[in-house]
Amino acid sequence: MPRPVTLFTGQWADLPLVELARSTAAWGFDGLELACWGDHFDVAAALADPGYVKAKRELLDSHELGCWALGAHLVGQAVCDRIDDRHRAILPAEIWGDGEPEGVRRRAAERMIETARAAAQFGVTQVNGFSGSPIWHLVYSFPPNDFAVIERGYEEFAERWGPIIDVFEAEGIRFGLEVHPTEIAYDFATTRRALEAIERRAAFGVNFDPSHLAYQFMDSAAFVEEFADRIYHVHVKDSKRRLDGRRSVWASHLNFGESERGWDFVSPGRGDVDFDALFRALNRIGYDGPLSIEWEDSGMEREWGAKDALAFVRRMDFAPSKRAFDESMQREARAPG
Amino acid sequence: MPRPVTLFTGQWADLPLVELARSTAAWGFDGLELACWGDHFDVAAALADPGYVKAKRELLDSHELGCWALGAHLVGQAVCDRIDDRHRAILPAEIWGDGEPEGVRRRAAERMIETARAAAQFGVTQVNGFSGSPIWHLVYSFPPNDFAVIERGYEEFAERWGPIIDVFEAEGIRFGLEVHPTEIAYDFATTRRALEAIERRAAFGVNFDPSHLAYQFMDSAAFVEEFADRIYHVHVKDSKRRLDGRRSVWASHLNFGESERGWDFVSPGRGDVDFDALFRALNRIGYDGPLSIEWEDSGMEREWGAKDALAFVRRMDFAPSKRAFDESMQREARAPG
Amino acid sequence: MPRPVTLFTGQWADLPLVELARSTAAWGFDGLELACWGDHFDVAAALADPGYVKAKRELLDSHELGCWALGAHLVGQAVCDRIDDRHRAILPAEIWGDGEPEGVRRRAAERMIETARAAAQFGVTQVNGFSGSPIWHLVYSFPPNDFAVIERGYEEFAERWGPIIDVFEAEGIRFGLEVHPTEIAYDFATTRRALEAIERRAAFGVNFDPSHLAYQFMDSAAFVEEFADRIYHVHVKDSKRRLDGRRSVWASHLNFGESERGWDFVSPGRGDVDFDALFRALNRIGYDGPLSIEWEDSGMEREWGAKDALAFVRRMDFAPSKRAFDESMQREARAPG
Amino acid sequence: MPRPVTLFTGQWADLPLVELARSTAAWGFDGLELACWGDHFDVAAALADPGYVKAKRELLDSHELGCWALGAHLVGQAVCDRIDDRHRAILPAEIWGDGEPEGVRRRAAERMIETARAAAQFGVTQVNGFSGSPIWHLVYSFPPNDFAVIERGYEEFAERWGPIIDVFEAEGIRFGLEVHPTEIAYDFATTRRALEAIERRAAFGVNFDPSHLAYQFMDSAAFVEEFADRIYHVHVKDSKRRLDGRRSVWASHLNFGESERGWDFVSPGRGDVDFDALFRALNRIGYDGPLSIEWEDSGMEREWGAKDALAFVRRMDFAPSKRAFDESMQREARAPG
Amino acid sequence: MPRPVTLFTGQWADLPLVELARSTAAWGFDGLELACWGDHFDVAAALADPGYVKAKRELLDSHELGCWALGAHLVGQAVCDRIDDRHRAILPAEIWGDGEPEGVRRRAAERMIETARAAAQFGVTQVNGFSGSPIWHLVYSFPPNDFAVIERGYEEFAERWGPIIDVFEAEGIRFGLEVHPTEIAYDFATTRRALEAIERRAAFGVNFDPSHLAYQFMDSAAFVEEFADRIYHVHVKDSKRRLDGRRSVWASHLNFGESERGWDFVSPGRGDVDFDALFRALNRIGYDGPLSIEWEDSGMEREWGAKDALAFVRRMDFAPSKRAFDESMQREARAPG
Amino acid sequence: MPRPVTLFTGQWADLPLVELARSTAAWGFDGLELACWGDHFDVAAALADPGYVKAKRELLDSHELGCWALGAHLVGQAVCDRIDDRHRAILPAEIWGDGEPEGVRRRAAERMIETARAAAQFGVTQVNGFSGSPIWHLVYSFPPNDFAVIERGYEEFAERWGPIIDVFEAEGIRFGLEVHPTEIAYDFATTRRALEAIERRAAFGVNFDPSHLAYQFMDSAAFVEEFADRIYHVHVKDSKRRLDGRRSVWASHLNFGESERGWDFVSPGRGDVDFDALFRALNRIGYDGPLSIEWEDSGMEREWGAKDALAFVRRMDFAPSKRAFDESMQREARAPG
Repeated sequence: MPRPVTLFTGQWADLPLVELARSTAAWGFDGLELACWGDHFDVAAALADPGYVKAKRELLDSHELGCWALGAHLVGQAVCDRIDDRHRAILPAEIWGDGEPEGVRRRAAERMIETARAAAQFGVTQVNGFSGSPIWHLVYSFPPNDFAVIERGYEEFAERWGPIIDVFEAEGIRFGLEVHPTEIAYDFATTRRALEAIERRAAFGVNFDPSHLAYQFMDSAAFVEEFADRIYHVHVKDSKRRLDGRRSVWASHLNFGESERGWDFVSPGRGDVDFDALFRALNRIGYDGPLSIEWEDSGMEREWGAKDALAFVRRMDFAPSKRAFDESMQREARAPG
Repeated sequence: MPRPVTLFTGQWADLPLVELARSTAAWGFDGLELACWGDHFDVAAALADPGYVKAKRELLDSHELGCWALGAHLVGQAVCDRIDDRHRAILPAEIWGDGEPEGVRRRAAERMIETARAAAQFGVTQVNGFSGSPIWHLVYSFPPNDFAVIERGYEEFAERWGPIIDVFEAEGIRFGLEVHPTEIAYDFATTRRALEAIERRAAFGVNFDPSHLAYQFMDSAAFVEEFADRIYHVHVKDSKRRLDGRRSVWASHLNFGESERGWDFVSPGRGDVDFDALFRALNRIGYDGPLSIEWEDSGMEREWGAKDALAFVRRMDFAPSKRAFDESMQREARAPG
Repeated sequence: MPRPVTLFTGQWADLPLVELARSTAAWGFDGLELACWGDHFDVAAALADPGYVKAKRELLDSHELGCWALGAHLVGQAVCDRIDDRHRAILPAEIWGDGEPEGVRRRAAERMIETARAAAQFGVTQVNGFSGSPIWHLVYSFPPNDFAVIERGYEEFAERWGPIIDVFEAEGIRFGLEVHPTEIAYDFATTRRALEAIERRAAFGVNFDPSHLAYQFMDSAAFVEEFADRIYHVHVKDSKRRLDGRRSVWASHLNFGESERGWDFVSPGRGDVDFDALFRALNRIGYDGPLSIEWEDSGMEREWGAKDALAFVRRMDFAPSKRAFDESMQREARAPG
Repeated sequence: MPRPVTLFTGQWADLPLVELARSTAAWGFDGLELACWGDHFDVAAALADPGYVKAKRELLDSHELGCWALGAHLVGQAVCDRIDDRHRAILPAEIWGDGEPEGVRRRAAERMIETARAAAQFGVTQVNGFSGSPIWHLVYSFPPNDFAVIERGYEEFAERWGPIIDVFEAEGIRFGLEVHPTEIAYDFATTRRALEAIERRAAFGVNFDPSHLAYQFMDSAAFVEEFADRIYHVHVKDSKRRLDGRRSVWASHLNFGESERGWDFVSPGRGDVDFDALFRALNRIGYDGPLSIEWEDSGMEREWGAKDALAFVRRMDFAPSKRAFDESMQREARAPG
Repeated sequence: MPRPVTLFTGQWADLPLVELARSTAAWGFDGLELACWGDHFDVAAALADPGYVKAKRELLDSHELGCWALGAHLVGQAVCDRIDDRHRAILPAEIWGDGEPEGVRRRAAERMIETARAAAQFGVTQVNGFSGSPIWHLVYSFPPNDFAVIERGYEEFAERWGPIIDVFEAEGIRFGLEVHPTEIAYDFATTRRALEAIERRAAFGVNFDPSHLAYQFMDSAAFVEEFADRIYHVHVKDSKRRLDGRRSVWASHLNFGESERGWDFVSPGRGDVDFDALFRALNRIGYDGPLSIEWEDSGMEREWGAKDALAFVRRMDFAPSKRAFDESMQREARAPG
Repeated sequence: MPRPVTLFTGQWADLPLVELARSTAAWGFDGLELACWGDHFDVAAALADPGYVKAKRELLDSHELGCWALGAHLVGQAVCDRIDDRHRAILPAEIWGDGEPEGVRRRAAERMIETARAAAQFGVTQVNGFSGSPIWHLVYSFPPNDFAVIERGYEEFAERWGPIIDVFEAEGIRFGLEVHPTEIAYDFATTRRALEAIERRAAFGVNFDPSHLAYQFMDSAAFVEEFADRIYHVHVKDSKRRLDGRRSVWASHLNFGESERGWDFVSPGRGDVDFDALFRALNRIGYDGPLSIEWEDSGMEREWGAKDALAFVRRMDFAPSKRAFDESMQREARAPG
């Protein structure tokens, strides 16, 4: 059986879930990865009201949509980030509170714990999200970094996320960190270090999104193979470099979609990700979870794009072989001749 | 609404329009860019007979085909070219006349003026075409060019096309020069100079055809962005380089389709043009005119190809986004939570 | 008319032909290239029993499947190979016999002769296969090769295959050697030498399979043009290099599908073969025989893959143009204007 | 006359200038770009003691070394940066003071003003340096940037540097911003914006260092041509990308020289900078100032490297042509024949 | 013995030979390829005055400079070109005469015949030059070429050059056509056709200049191997493509050295020619004639450049091996052990 | 101190060592890696005659040449190879004996043991060589390999080399397998398996030769880093791919230097090996042994080449840095200011 193809609802949170569910079912999706914002999935409500998760599930069922994961990116970002005004815009008011950084971080951590509990009640075993990072701003070492500070950043990450992962473990939920700039891990080397810092606890893995590797010139299939035992969930998303000698891979402090940027997110299949190689790697490691389309393309109308992306994934998501290579050439394996 | 997809009829002029219209409508085209040769659009007849343009329009309407532009390439070529026997084969007999070069050029210029008038009567605002060039034969500077002669070539172009553009302006028609070898402009540098020579008059712009940039190793999206205010019409056409160390990018005086050539025109999507990047650039500059397939592929049966090309454009012509990036992550933009 | 698309049955020999024929017809194939193993085509039976070939043909006819070629790869391999235990697994018991190498080679040669006769009775004119090679193990020259031994290898190939080709000629059948590692010819240079060795006899040509050229970094279209008069049959198969600085193009003595290999076979269109260029070359040389999908992809479920491959070929197999380039721009060729 | 080749002394500040001058003269350098740290050039001393600059000049003269520029990178960095502990390590104690950020920034600005005055006294017209940036930490837009804040960053830069440039102008000194990550300008787009923000004042230009463009995949020659009127000084420095699918162009929070980094600085000529193209561009724009080797290569012994770099520059720094192309083929230009 | 390295004097014709000989000898050249313009080599004088060639040879001998070839490019260009004002600037007055095209062509042909005779008297066996072309201006087929006209162009070339080659043959001199745009042959395909047109007469070969292949994306070593029996003389010259998506390989009607051009000539070793591969190919075919540096680089001072080029050639011009590969590993070939 | 640069004498065994030592010393080499063939180093003589090694050393000393390693490639090849006539040509007569394969392999193994003893007497600690391979001929899996046979090949290698390595260990000598086609290890994957098979014994390491990785498209620096603890000795040798779409990476059963081959060995610095990256990797892992030039280039005269190669290595073999990056920017590290 092919893997279910879901839509991550985070970029559609302006639409009520009741509307979005109807549309995505009509487009042919198998399910949704519900974002914990908009009215899609409300962690506090889920914990407060026993009927909340039941109603959500019924809504999805009515459209024959499955749900295997929640997306808790926005709150997760605040857990060990350097808090500034940008966080105010993305956090629930009760998490932001007065905006005092340490308070924000603690409330965010508490909400992540609640998210594990809500996921358990809702009946999914996977929560995806961001981690934030105390050291992202040191990405270029000038003034020269004190690398003990970098090490300390990994430790702080582990200290803040450890208690959260305790609860994930207790609830039987796995957390999938989306490896992504501004998080503690955004490439191979930082993922290695982050996993070491948190002592490779089983409840802490990766929500793999290949789009973030492509603009860094990294190989998605190689990532999947290296971190095979930590690929807990997969986002289908793409990005395209537009380097012409005048544009920078670092994107020039410009917003997505600006012509002078060196890269942009694009609808899956229209960028630099080698999805054929990626899906072969997923087959090789035995990943059988959802393929969750996180649709972002600042140059394309989103409904047109979501349907285009779904068609693309259907075309790419071949099942692995069930036979040994050249087996039919062996005498013993043949039909009676 | 997506852009209309039209077929440029120039390569189908052996077929009567009545037949071609029926076919293209059946294949799913939205309209035609009528060539001013064959029986597709006769400028002289249109001016002489008030019923001519009405009948044409009715024919198109009967197939629910639109028409937004005329193609006057062949006569335009003669306006400031060095006339030789090759022009005889492509010009109407009355324009060729006795073949005396200056006479040919003047009659061609007059016919271009009439074309603007006919277009106005027919109810389109766009005429595409070639310009010819008095200096194309100097493309490689040996014997060493006198670069004053090159400058003089741009001036001659402006002198000959100025009066034509006067009438285009008066009639409210825009001329779209197809940037193309053998014309006054065939790349970025020559387009810059040609636009300067004609003082960037508003009635003189570009019919952009990416196929001609690809074999020169140029970037179509970059062209669209640099000349954003002059992209008046777009041809969808492709070309493919076949360089193997023994073939030349200059094509060896060989006819299209010969194996030893360094490049060839191919059906859209099968060549080197990056249409995804091109369409994003068109979205960015706000181009909303037709996408006119100029179908030329010496290695493919043309009906098979026209349908294949149309399917390709439908797959590529996504609408631009109507939303700001990451907007749904902002608290204010979300559905009530 | 487009070329027929067939499936080579060699990799499906675990299925009875009656079942495979039903499936492939349902998937939309035009015919089958029958492998001479499994129960697909039994050379000995065909010669012994006059009703055998009739029944086969009726089975195919009942599904509206054509058959234009037989595949005799396994027995052909033994004709001039260095015989070892691996041959036992792929040869019919009566050809293997006691496994004494020279005896195996002679019985294999005899069976190839019978194959030509069986093909004639069955009513096909093409038999494809391997040749084996007495010198493949000398592929890397260390200890330094005595190149007279290499020359002698080409001569031995010609001596062993000459008498077989005599019968092919007499029966009006053409043999198509699949150019492939471990055969006497596996690239341009060795194909040149092999054809010279066998004196370019008309009954000896090539079953062209582009997948084997791609991982050697060779150009399929160039091969087709150089050996235009010997392209007797075409396999549609693809391969993909996975070179990342740590994997070798020589594949490390690893089985297909292993992650550390430098290349793998993949379903057509998902690899490095430039099929657009290849099909243009086939058009140019006038090849109008079958396009026979030899489906092998160790990372994909084969039924999904066979259908995907067929759709790919239908999309790629355009007919060549029937018109001269730019013909419609010539005055004489136009519709009356 | 070729351009003078100098060594920027910033990476050699552990050596007393008296020793470094002796060595560099012996290695064949034409001069030094004196760093305003170590004992190389002390701005405060230069202003306090009239004999200071005279003694410096005499030391240089005694080795036949010229000096055309000062390097004030470390203090410049603090002018509009977000101050943290890293600045303490690189700033003079009197600039750091108590480390209160706004105080640090103001004292740094004051010291830059003094640097212009000291330069004037010393008899050079060029001071190079960094600017710092209030917005570098926003380089990746997540949480989504408020782009008004980015705009405000450019304004703050202009507000803080404006008064400094006033004094530079008054003193007849030009400031050369080294375009570099962590500064207000680090690529084409940000340089455009920074120059606009500061209203393209003539005393504010660029100390061009190609190494920083190479790892961002940008073209040094194109930069020189676009900002031709602002190339006030040139550093010769190189960098090399080491991308293998597992390393990131963003360098993974790792120190220079670590194996997992995606790029590193290397001795000139051993990296990705196309110096031939760069020097042609410098010839084309008429740059005739120093070529100042800023030597940094974490994998090479520095004395060996400095000599190697000097030999490289001598080999590359060809003078531009003084003749028109093909002039000698014109009859009039020839020797009497 | 390594091949002699000569300087082609055509780009130095503003200098009297007496001066140039002194300089080039001092720089270390082995000889000169004398241009038939300036005062370097005067064909008419050589035929008129028996002492002329003796004096030239003595001048060269006095500097220990050899001469193995004359360069007659400018007059050769006029033999079958479309004559225009540009030819006036490069031709001797007596060849230009009144400028009537056919007269110019005939006088040029006559002078080429005299050049063969003068070469014989001077004691060289090689004359290099251009051919001109009656069809160069048809390089891009629009208006669509009548390809019979192209064929006729090759015939005209053969008709005009045939009688010249008669005399070359009679005098024992070989003509080396420099394959070059604006000549009858400028790439592989046109060289094939030109050699066929002139029936591969032994006195007609190629003066191979790799710089002209590089900007057309062609492989110099492959050219040398394909036309091995016609490589009569070799120019060492280089060119560099500067394609950035905005520059054209066709160079935009711009003079050499302009920033917007897509390619330029550069001093040998600084461009795209793979000289290592080229010199290996020359070794393989047994070419042992001069390596004649034709120095053209619009961005470099020419004396600096000529010396740099000479050093480059000395570094590259390795002798071929005199031993079989791995021979020393064979027992018989070893020193007594 | 830079590493010593030696010449491996294997390709010069036709010259008596007394002559070769004189030449190489004159060319500037620091020492020799003596081949155990020709009269360079005779293992049997060394064990039989106590004066032999003393005399060798004195000869080297008289030219101030060091020796740090022996090369025992030819005999090593026979230890676990499939023996054929090619071995006869490269083996000493007493090892070949009657040519019966198992006897040859045993005598070769015995000679390898003696080589360790002779090395110890001579006073070197490193012996380099080949291993042979029982499975090389199975490099392409057709007829389909039984992969248990491949596994068995690694075991056989370990069984045959284990007793040899016992003696190496006992004598304090390290064996360096040259990773190379036809040996048990020729790339990353096979080196991993071979090292596992022999249980990563400390006396068994690698003589790293980058030329063999380059034509397989592998990364030499990555190899050095992955097998850092087994890089016991380094050969400096290069190879160049000549792929043009018609040549194969597998080299077509052609001898080195043939034009149709897809790659060839070339003098160091003229091929595809990235020596800058390789030497940085050697610096990083702390390799400080010899850089031994194994000079093979079928297209270059060998004396010219050896000197060219030595100059190349001297230019590339920079010492690693002894300082931390940007250290001189830290206040504490500076000269008193």
